[in-house]
Amino acid sequence: MIPTSEKTAPDMSVFETLESEVRSYCRSFPTVFEKAQGYKLWDTQGREYIDFFAGAGALNYGHNHPAMKKKLVDYLMGSNIIHSLDMATKAKEAFLKRFNDIILKPRQMEYKVMFPGPTGANTVESALKLARKVTGRETVISFTHAFHGMTLGALSITGNSFKRHGAGVPLNHAVSMPYENYLGDDIDSLTLLERYLEDKGSGVALPAAIILETVQGEGGINVASPEWLKQVEKICRRWDILLIVDDVQAGCGRTGPFFSFEKAGIKPDIVCLSKSIGGYGLPMALTLIKPEFDEWAPGEHNGTFRGHNLAFVAATESLSFWETDALTRETLRKGEKTKQSLQQIADQHPDLDPVVRGRGLMVGIAFNQTDFAGKVCKEAFSRGLIMETSGPEDEVAKLLPPLTIDDEGLDRGLAILEESIAVVKASLEQ
Amino acid sequence: MIPTSEKTAPDMSVFETLESEVRSYCRSFPTVFEKAQGYKLWDTQGREYIDFFAGAGALNYGHNHPAMKKKLVDYLMGSNIIHSLDMATKAKEAFLKRFNDIILKPRQMEYKVMFPGPTGANTVESALKLARKVTGRETVISFTHAFHGMTLGALSITGNSFKRHGAGVPLNHAVSMPYENYLGDDIDSLTLLERYLEDKGSGVALPAAIILETVQGEGGINVASPEWLKQVEKICRRWDILLIVDDVQAGCGRTGPFFSFEKAGIKPDIVCLSKSIGGYGLPMALTLIKPEFDEWAPGEHNGTFRGHNLAFVAATESLSFWETDALTRETLRKGEKTKQSLQQIADQHPDLDPVVRGRGLMVGIAFNQTDFAGKVCKEAFSRGLIMETSGPEDEVAKLLPPLTIDDEGLDRGLAILEESIAVVKASLEQ
Amino acid sequence: MIPTSEKTAPDMSVFETLESEVRSYCRSFPTVFEKAQGYKLWDTQGREYIDFFAGAGALNYGHNHPAMKKKLVDYLMGSNIIHSLDMATKAKEAFLKRFNDIILKPRQMEYKVMFPGPTGANTVESALKLARKVTGRETVISFTHAFHGMTLGALSITGNSFKRHGAGVPLNHAVSMPYENYLGDDIDSLTLLERYLEDKGSGVALPAAIILETVQGEGGINVASPEWLKQVEKICRRWDILLIVDDVQAGCGRTGPFFSFEKAGIKPDIVCLSKSIGGYGLPMALTLIKPEFDEWAPGEHNGTFRGHNLAFVAATESLSFWETDALTRETLRKGEKTKQSLQQIADQHPDLDPVVRGRGLMVGIAFNQTDFAGKVCKEAFSRGLIMETSGPEDEVAKLLPPLTIDDEGLDRGLAILEESIAVVKASLEQ
Amino acid sequence: MIPTSEKTAPDMSVFETLESEVRSYCRSFPTVFEKAQGYKLWDTQGREYIDFFAGAGALNYGHNHPAMKKKLVDYLMGSNIIHSLDMATKAKEAFLKRFNDIILKPRQMEYKVMFPGPTGANTVESALKLARKVTGRETVISFTHAFHGMTLGALSITGNSFKRHGAGVPLNHAVSMPYENYLGDDIDSLTLLERYLEDKGSGVALPAAIILETVQGEGGINVASPEWLKQVEKICRRWDILLIVDDVQAGCGRTGPFFSFEKAGIKPDIVCLSKSIGGYGLPMALTLIKPEFDEWAPGEHNGTFRGHNLAFVAATESLSFWETDALTRETLRKGEKTKQSLQQIADQHPDLDPVVRGRGLMVGIAFNQTDFAGKVCKEAFSRGLIMETSGPEDEVAKLLPPLTIDDEGLDRGLAILEESIAVVKASLEQ
Repeated sequence: MIPTSEKTAPDMSVFETLESEVRSYCRSFPTVFEKAQGYKLWDTQGREYIDFFAGAGALNYGHNHPAMKKKLVDYLMGSNIIHSLDMATKAKEAFLKRFNDIILKPRQMEYKVMFPGPTGANTVESALKLARKVTGRETVISFTHAFHGMTLGALSITGNSFKRHGAGVPLNHAVSMPYENYLGDDIDSLTLLERYLEDKGSGVALPAAIILETVQGEGGINVASPEWLKQVEKICRRWDILLIVDDVQAGCGRTGPFFSFEKAGIKPDIVCLSKSIGGYGLPMALTLIKPEFDEWAPGEHNGTFRGHNLAFVAATESLSFWETDALTRETLRKGEKTKQSLQQIADQHPDLDPVVRGRGLMVGIAFNQTDFAGKVCKEAFSRGLIMETSGPEDEVAKLLPPLTIDDEGLDRGLAILEESIAVVKASLEQ
Repeated sequence: MIPTSEKTAPDMSVFETLESEVRSYCRSFPTVFEKAQGYKLWDTQGREYIDFFAGAGALNYGHNHPAMKKKLVDYLMGSNIIHSLDMATKAKEAFLKRFNDIILKPRQMEYKVMFPGPTGANTVESALKLARKVTGRETVISFTHAFHGMTLGALSITGNSFKRHGAGVPLNHAVSMPYENYLGDDIDSLTLLERYLEDKGSGVALPAAIILETVQGEGGINVASPEWLKQVEKICRRWDILLIVDDVQAGCGRTGPFFSFEKAGIKPDIVCLSKSIGGYGLPMALTLIKPEFDEWAPGEHNGTFRGHNLAFVAATESLSFWETDALTRETLRKGEKTKQSLQQIADQHPDLDPVVRGRGLMVGIAFNQTDFAGKVCKEAFSRGLIMETSGPEDEVAKLLPPLTIDDEGLDRGLAILEESIAVVKASLEQ
Repeated sequence: MIPTSEKTAPDMSVFETLESEVRSYCRSFPTVFEKAQGYKLWDTQGREYIDFFAGAGALNYGHNHPAMKKKLVDYLMGSNIIHSLDMATKAKEAFLKRFNDIILKPRQMEYKVMFPGPTGANTVESALKLARKVTGRETVISFTHAFHGMTLGALSITGNSFKRHGAGVPLNHAVSMPYENYLGDDIDSLTLLERYLEDKGSGVALPAAIILETVQGEGGINVASPEWLKQVEKICRRWDILLIVDDVQAGCGRTGPFFSFEKAGIKPDIVCLSKSIGGYGLPMALTLIKPEFDEWAPGEHNGTFRGHNLAFVAATESLSFWETDALTRETLRKGEKTKQSLQQIADQHPDLDPVVRGRGLMVGIAFNQTDFAGKVCKEAFSRGLIMETSGPEDEVAKLLPPLTIDDEGLDRGLAILEESIAVVKASLEQ
Repeated sequence: MIPTSEKTAPDMSVFETLESEVRSYCRSFPTVFEKAQGYKLWDTQGREYIDFFAGAGALNYGHNHPAMKKKLVDYLMGSNIIHSLDMATKAKEAFLKRFNDIILKPRQMEYKVMFPGPTGANTVESALKLARKVTGRETVISFTHAFHGMTLGALSITGNSFKRHGAGVPLNHAVSMPYENYLGDDIDSLTLLERYLEDKGSGVALPAAIILETVQGEGGINVASPEWLKQVEKICRRWDILLIVDDVQAGCGRTGPFFSFEKAGIKPDIVCLSKSIGGYGLPMALTLIKPEFDEWAPGEHNGTFRGHNLAFVAATESLSFWETDALTRETLRKGEKTKQSLQQIADQHPDLDPVVRGRGLMVGIAFNQTDFAGKVCKEAFSRGLIMETSGPEDEVAKLLPPLTIDDEGLDRGLAILEESIAVVKASLEQ
């Protein structure tokens, strides 16, 4: 790798001149990317980067997977339908069949599939609407540190105050309850929730739904235990509240199994999927709905890009990964390995009070110093590793490598991270 | 064309079994589509359809345009970056440059470009957020029969009661004002708006923004005059209200010029683009912002699919259409021709009180009988023409052919429409 | 009367030192009042004032009416119940019986009587709650320049932007429609309302209720015609919307008949009464409800001061005024006389473009110059006449004398007003 | 006392025929009251009742206190001003001076006095408005089981779901946090609140104010400790949140000292007073505001009944009780005695798991059986004792005798309560 100092500064002028101030990751990773393959990226100056970011979880199968690429090229060459609103197409039919055969049926999951528009926010907004319609209630309970998206409905159940403030209007009809361990190990965070629901004087109305991520990605890699998830499900059943799992980031194998909640054995009423469901990084989202709650009127929720057939083609091909449990096993193995490595790094820096957490290949290391994680990511980038921070104070360095990364790539990335932490720490001690 | 009666019924069972009840267009057009080229579609049984729907305006350049297809295939084959969040990529850089060179500069339009996520709702939600941030106000004024999207913020400024009701919560911070001619020709619809703003006792707060479509597509092909648009702009300037034009459907040449508001000579503070901006029907959206209002903090609005590079590639290529004014001229010519044909059809059926309206190739014919337009579209489908209804009562048959349609295709489609109207009318008279 | 210049400045120091900045009328009328009788007030320095304000309509029967005073003193002396929450008391029973006998029965009005708490805001809040409960809808339609109170629900249907802004939170679930003549004589202001209700794409939901004042007091003495009121009632009937008349200021004989809407012949579903219903200026309010809409659960709305028995005693006695139509006839006569006098004054000052309006003894004169009405009221005060401004720009000098004022008092007050206008005008011309 | 069985059924027909279904206490206490003196009431049939309800805390000095009665009669007889909006009157001046001299000054409390309208809801609504104005924030934090009133703003911070549901619209801009001991003795209920405020990802915005009752009356006689109150104040100071104490029920000596928060030594930014501030049961309320937060514009909050001079006269006289600490000492003594008696009763019925709680003469006994407290109150009424239930499930029998009750009255009331509990228990065991 070329040392930072010798690099030519990348030319970002087009972005700086023409693009809005809202641009963000191009500031953290200030170069122009051009090529990608598997877990690697190259910029226009030929520098190579290891990708521990994976499109914020949209590239679980890595960049430019050859089998999907072939299908996409063939599909394009064949004058097939590209854009179809929600009309029936052969590509959509194939996806539906295969998703049912490979994912739903083997798991004894009977869900109706909704195409709510191509983004995570679309599936979340559709889930909220449906839960409110089905129950006739307005309140939705979400959790501290939740992230569900940037449209107004999704923002209302998102914890981050900077993002919330961006709404410019009050965010209503949502109540934020403490996620597992939010109040430390000694306080069962669901005690409060149950008390609120039981008590007619709590000031909190019976909600339409409880929505949660089983692992909070943007929130700082907070992992809910199977027991806690079961308890939430029990609460939902007791009060006829719909349980929505937002599996946009944690789903599609990120934590090991296809759905992040499989280990807990819960049966959400609605499941939100996006990001890696498109397989190749193409915009796509699904809302899975228990048949008894599929009370939509035709067209009650719609959108122009519900029929993104290129995404269906890649998505269909990507399901081949799920014909066996190989990917799940490998993800769990690599996840464990990653956590062990991180723990070894953590043990070298007790003064930073580092905390390693995660499930599968959704892993993070939290630091007790403001800006430390951010500086580590910056240093890592200069050394050819792409990763970002998460958590309300950006206090967590987050690792989301492609699930398909090989051990060499993983080792190299972890080594860069280890160096970066040491370098940042040394610079602070000067 | 094969007569309806001889057709094999298409097999829709996969969709009926696995897809949510929310599915809609696959009910109106009950077949499985497979191939497409230009203005034509074919289903799995080889039947050909003329497309007067064009992906609800997402396919202004027709299906599978050869030059874009080539660029897409080359891009895919070249191991280029597909998904990039909002990191800088070569494909994005090329798009930004070309969009500036071909679209903005020649029109003396200085706008910052924001990638708000890939859907129309994303650009609308981002526009609302920004207007509220810039002004510190909460209310947004929209118009009767407006359609801006299905996420909570976009729904709050959408007129349709069925869609609004789907929200399941009250839709606040928005005031619906009468669109031009909403109260008939005799009442200047802006009188009310101005009176409300002037009067400290009106009960309507000074808004952050006024948002409008210059031609309301979903609302029933209602066309605002240049004078009315200028008057709205003047009102915005007088009270320091931001003017947002939602050009998601009417933009990208649909009404003739690239932007639908060019003829009116107004300068919106924010412009929302999506649908055909992606060129090939791929999910993409832009929010254009006057530099003085680009007050975003980095990352204040974000999203996973802001960097859909395949869309950038097709979008960049599609801008070639705008190197000359040929497309604009052709669109206006074909639009006039279409309106004349519709007027001739209208004149044959004075009892249906048909009203022809539209601008460019965004044209509609309204009927005075409930369900008539819907029956016409159904009949047209059986005869190989795809078109949909619009308007709050679905009283308008809407024509949105690809701008690239040739005269033969246009004539054939109009002939089917003429027959369909006659057939439906005859059936009602029996 | 003592000329202004010779007066000792009143000592307001206690109020300036101890009372909040929110105090208001004590700034307009800067003296300390001590005694009152009929239409006259005296301050601590013995100066006499004619009262054309009458407690903002709470003193229709004048100050300290002897018969009521006697009843109050007897009641107090008799160790009777003063405070009773909503328990049954003899005083309340007497009021209910007499109100039914004297007011409701002779008018063939069958209403249930609710004691919602002692203020106008209380009755308005209770009316909104009930209308929402009965219909299951949330939106309430109110009118431009409406004033319904200062609590959050009442504020949401009040037009004044200064008052609304005081809420500190967005005021939702209300839509402000143009009052009669709001858009000039040529535009039927209900056209818009009907169009919004008829049209499924208007963006305005079917409301729970329409609430209105038949004469807008705070809004600037805007008078609705009987025809307009009938038309509003018809709209309510057509769409099963509840009609609420807020008769807090215009009721209790202020416009002539007991209820302000009697002349129009409409039958509101809910009527709000307060101010003069207490007879003697004591806090009291009623909500009248058509029996079929009395769907309250016991205690669903409550309050500590629903059983203000002193008010019941005075109120019961005050109903004696309504045993004949004498008060109504006299009010109408004096109202006509007042309007004629004002018109004569108006005719002397065509350059001020004065507009005289009102019904019964709820009369105003509007001026076209900012602050003119305020200066007139100030000048009038210095000459011993108490009256206030109204309207969104305080552009109206408002006359609300006690209904029991005699002709001499009325003439004296009108003479002071005439002088004051002349003096202010002359001072501006210098 | 006449045994129940021999009583003539009271005639409630006027109320049943003419009054709305919303009536409530007249159902619990089904007789027509006529006379009252001190702690005693008599109905129209001459039956005597001991009053342990005291106008829900509005009659701390008992019924018809002779000194106040005299002042009221003299004031009425003297043709003094009765109704004055917020104009300056001699009666108001006297009250302001005396309130400052007797209450504020000796306690080193510098507050501006606002007259927000005559009810508890008025003072609460004014406090919320001011806190939002001063801070520019919208959210207000209230506590579980809080009761602050029935208007829309006050309801939004009230816990009771039945009352909240009555609003008919969503209640927003408020967050309900656990009151002390809400989650049991082991969990510090402020941990959650502090965590929410500290954490930028909590989903709860920095609030304008925290509003609380130091003893929750309607909520079930829940008593906050001085330590907890101090901790809340500390939180407010740390984050520049305004602390509002709603002392409507617990103030005016109910818990011993004039203000319920004196013992805790906290200095609220805003204090809400109503109920017994009027002295004689007449509608009156005050909002006390620290001078630095008195940012009201003149008239920004107003109302017709802010100048209820009869109430000022009684209120001024009632302050004589506060010239010494006799009332405080007696209230504390009688409160202790009451709690001891209740504890003795409780000890007789361990199976009912009775919990005695309270401060001063605001005392309750909670039972573990549904409806038990309600039956006890009903039985007590038949034996000549008036008291009501409180708590979200009406599980608490509440004792609010006049502070001026003598020992004989207190003993007699407690004896009836003891009997009633025994009788109800026996009846359930049959």
